[in-house]
Amino acid sequence: MPRVSLDSLVEGVRRRETRAIARAISLVEDSSPMRLELLTQLFPHTGHAYKVGITGAPGAGKSTLTYQLIPRLTQQGFRVAVLAVDPTSPFSGGAILGDRIRFDEEFREVYIRSLASRGSLGGLSRGVPPAVRVLEAAGYDLILIETVGAGQLQVDVRYVADTVLLVLVPEAGDVVQAMKAGIIEIADVYVINKADREGAGRMRMELRNALELGGRPKGWNPPILLTEAVNGKGIDEVVAHMLEHRRYQQESGGWHQRRREQLEWELQSLIHDALERQAKTLTRQLFDAQTLEKILTGAENPFPRILEWLR
Amino acid sequence: MPRVSLDSLVEGVRRRETRAIARAISLVEDSSPMRLELLTQLFPHTGHAYKVGITGAPGAGKSTLTYQLIPRLTQQGFRVAVLAVDPTSPFSGGAILGDRIRFDEEFREVYIRSLASRGSLGGLSRGVPPAVRVLEAAGYDLILIETVGAGQLQVDVRYVADTVLLVLVPEAGDVVQAMKAGIIEIADVYVINKADREGAGRMRMELRNALELGGRPKGWNPPILLTEAVNGKGIDEVVAHMLEHRRYQQESGGWHQRRREQLEWELQSLIHDALERQAKTLTRQLFDAQTLEKILTGAENPFPRILEWLR
Repeated sequence: MPRVSLDSLVEGVRRRETRAIARAISLVEDSSPMRLELLTQLFPHTGHAYKVGITGAPGAGKSTLTYQLIPRLTQQGFRVAVLAVDPTSPFSGGAILGDRIRFDEEFREVYIRSLASRGSLGGLSRGVPPAVRVLEAAGYDLILIETVGAGQLQVDVRYVADTVLLVLVPEAGDVVQAMKAGIIEIADVYVINKADREGAGRMRMELRNALELGGRPKGWNPPILLTEAVNGKGIDEVVAHMLEHRRYQQESGGWHQRRREQLEWELQSLIHDALERQAKTLTRQLFDAQTLEKILTGAENPFPRILEWLR
Repeated sequence: MPRVSLDSLVEGVRRRETRAIARAISLVEDSSPMRLELLTQLFPHTGHAYKVGITGAPGAGKSTLTYQLIPRLTQQGFRVAVLAVDPTSPFSGGAILGDRIRFDEEFREVYIRSLASRGSLGGLSRGVPPAVRVLEAAGYDLILIETVGAGQLQVDVRYVADTVLLVLVPEAGDVVQAMKAGIIEIADVYVINKADREGAGRMRMELRNALELGGRPKGWNPPILLTEAVNGKGIDEVVAHMLEHRRYQQESGGWHQRRREQLEWELQSLIHDALERQAKTLTRQLFDAQTLEKILTGAENPFPRILEWLR
């Protein structure tokens, strides 16, 4: 992209033109070197937004909660954007079909965007930090990041969010699953959604016990809140505790430490992406179709070739 | 490792000494260049095993099914090994604690091994192909690969297995979840476990419809089997259809195509691992502690540095 059009893209983002934002996010989602040029220009306008991760199993009600949080946060004066990093989220309904931006008339100023998987493991969440920078440059100062509730991705949310909400539903074994997935240690606010269901109170106790057993470092004591997102019940408390967590971090110095970890992760991801691009090309260069056939019949040993390349 | 001890390790593996096998798998799980030297020596003895992936959501009964399959496959003359690529699997109970090998007296000849996550997304399943080569060199000719049923990992199982079994349980929405996760298209045999539960018959119909709608390529028509793994019900049919799928592929030429895709994925993973090792080191080299602080205060723009390194 020529300099002139990159400049005008940055200007469009700064003016909060939705087409420019959409184009810029697509550009930084791609692992081409071009994204680094765009990020270079956006950088001076970034770093200020408060990022909230919303994670949990499919069906826990993450999107409903997000939907309920938006008007309340807007009322508090935040300019809210949503990144849906979850292929099963209603917010990212059209993601795979290319129709990736939706505006909800009701909210006007909300920008909702889903990030598509880039086809590689981990690519999903690695796209978040650059997309956040675009939204920050466009003036959004609260970014809700809805992430798919599966394994490693849940844990990675810590590196893209200042506050992590874990959404659970009263269901036997859900606390145990969350513990196994390693998410228990990283959430800052626990939300037991669908709290009208049987077992919500017991789950809260189980969770409290698990947290105490887990031996969390002293400091923030994560609240466990009960909500019925569908009816808007308990949402005000979620907002209050979210913002309380932000305040606590800023006062305790945890904020800076966390931001630093986020930055390291972001930079490492960018470098990793660049290397990953090379992996495919390198594999094809080292092993052409004919060589693959030879390896399959056992006529050629592939590993010395990789060893040689490494040296 | 000096040549002599690498040679003796290979000899130990070939003699099916469990300590040598364990040590060799640990070595190839690690992304050091040493693993390539070991793989180079093992290669001539590899490529012959039939690899069966067993995937599905946590609690679906994958381990119980695996447990039931083992004696039946042994009876058919296979020398069976199990790789549990699932941190929540009972088979990998001790994985995190280092106690990674278990023998079940009842089965004697079965080698069960869990693969630990290497801490990075995707690292989990990338450890499978080298571990398979060790087991092949040790003479195992049927390898059951139990994989965690989450997102991308389920899809990757296609690249490590010749036949993929998807284990489901009669539960509302399970078919839809599997479709969304992209697993529906890649399974070769469907197993509805806990078939004594309500809804098993309906699930089978739903699944059949989903498969027909999905417009699978002509050829293998994946069976949908009902089992009660806990009681051993329906397991003989699973074995029969598994082996039928193998036969079908070998006769249709699909086998060779699939093996080639597996090989490409294996080689790409090895190259990717080597590059990933570089990413961390590179990030630290490009951005020291002082630079990170400058970036956090906005005094330095990090992206030009990465761009420059790319050039």
